[in-house]
Amino acid sequence: MAGTDKSKDAPAGGGAGDSGPAVILVDPQLGENIGMVARAMLNCGLTELRLVRPRDGWPNEAAVKASSGADRVVEGARLFDTTGEAVADLNRLYATTARPRGMVTRVVTPRQAAAEIHAASAEGAHIGLLFGPERSGLVNDDIALADTVLEVPLNPAFASLNLAQAVLIVGYELYQTQMETAPERLESGGALPAPKAEMVNFFERLERHLDETGFLYPPEKRPGMVRNIRALFQRANFTEAELRTLHGIVSALSSGRGKGEG
Amino acid sequence: MAGTDKSKDAPAGGGAGDSGPAVILVDPQLGENIGMVARAMLNCGLTELRLVRPRDGWPNEAAVKASSGADRVVEGARLFDTTGEAVADLNRLYATTARPRGMVTRVVTPRQAAAEIHAASAEGAHIGLLFGPERSGLVNDDIALADTVLEVPLNPAFASLNLAQAVLIVGYELYQTQMETAPERLESGGALPAPKAEMVNFFERLERHLDETGFLYPPEKRPGMVRNIRALFQRANFTEAELRTLHGIVSALSSGRGKGEG
Repeated sequence: MAGTDKSKDAPAGGGAGDSGPAVILVDPQLGENIGMVARAMLNCGLTELRLVRPRDGWPNEAAVKASSGADRVVEGARLFDTTGEAVADLNRLYATTARPRGMVTRVVTPRQAAAEIHAASAEGAHIGLLFGPERSGLVNDDIALADTVLEVPLNPAFASLNLAQAVLIVGYELYQTQMETAPERLESGGALPAPKAEMVNFFERLERHLDETGFLYPPEKRPGMVRNIRALFQRANFTEAELRTLHGIVSALSSGRGKGEG
Repeated sequence: MAGTDKSKDAPAGGGAGDSGPAVILVDPQLGENIGMVARAMLNCGLTELRLVRPRDGWPNEAAVKASSGADRVVEGARLFDTTGEAVADLNRLYATTARPRGMVTRVVTPRQAAAEIHAASAEGAHIGLLFGPERSGLVNDDIALADTVLEVPLNPAFASLNLAQAVLIVGYELYQTQMETAPERLESGGALPAPKAEMVNFFERLERHLDETGFLYPPEKRPGMVRNIRALFQRANFTEAELRTLHGIVSALSSGRGKGEG
């Protein structure tokens, strides 16, 4: 469902509707930044890159280099003379800009946009994400081509992102939305938490040792102490292998005890 | 409430608990990357940066330049010789790594972590985000200091993020969560997880006992065994009171040992 299949099957820059939204860079300056955008795109399973008037010409060796292996995104990029031509085939267009200036515009966060884009893509819409040049951002005429403005909620005292970072945040949100909400999981190579019976077995053994040493004394405090000890060990959801380790530790620590009598 | 006030009031690198989680970079290589991390941090209102063995020395002019104005984060960075020292005062530690190798570890997404961190910070916990060097990522011994691994869900066929981008994604999620609802949390009556230094202290004591009994034999297997034992105990986020209980258990179990010889 997620990234692997997508990135394997999607044509790089082929304009097919199923490659996720197209990323359109208007007047990008450094080839290096275009390459870093390509890398961020592929991180998020996006492959369709469109360039409007890249300043340093195209193709651009610095872009390939900076893409860190996302060559096919760079090489599949398509060139346009105007923003209008670059977005002509798109059904919906989001303009990413820090602040829409003097315009009445619908503004959403990347997270809201991701949900919308996911739904619209499912209905066959082809969608574009428009990014302006590094320093100046999008001009109003380009913003006016978009139906929605995308604003990344960040520290308002220091909100300026570089181009690749802005693309990454938007792509990241798109990728998260594609996936079902992944539950917290334990990376254990498939090992399950030990059955509770084995936990209890371990507890009883531990408590027997602790009784022998007088640790669980006096008797009226014993139930509470036992509960606390069990609670702290339960929390970690030990696997069976880990439980064996704990048994080993108890054995090792207790190993010498009683020798004096033996 | 949000970024402005936070970034205005928070001491840069002062270690105060209210500046948001600390970002700890282990063995960072290029000063430029440290600067870009500082920029990404301040974008998200984070100001506390800790550096373990920066390769190109410190202070570093390239870092200041690449921070694009986040100078105070760079200049407030604190230096450490070991990861252990860098995390000693922290109550919870998240290790950011593509894949925990051969360890049973709790794994969460940045979004899940952000919710947890928000809740734990509100209770006064001081939290750290651990990032490894640019190419190689964190080593297992550093991951073993963390109680949780943070994995960014991205295109599995092309998941590698640069350092600043990884910091940005985690910081971005933290920033988004600042205004959202509290997640599942540990009901601990206000008790915080024990600082990492106390955990390490406990581990070293336990390992000393286990060395004496021959449990950690043979030597070539010792590092892996120690890592696994630390990982299984880390996962439970023991409080200081619980840690005292564990110390008591170790003392009790070991109490008779050696009597035979005495």
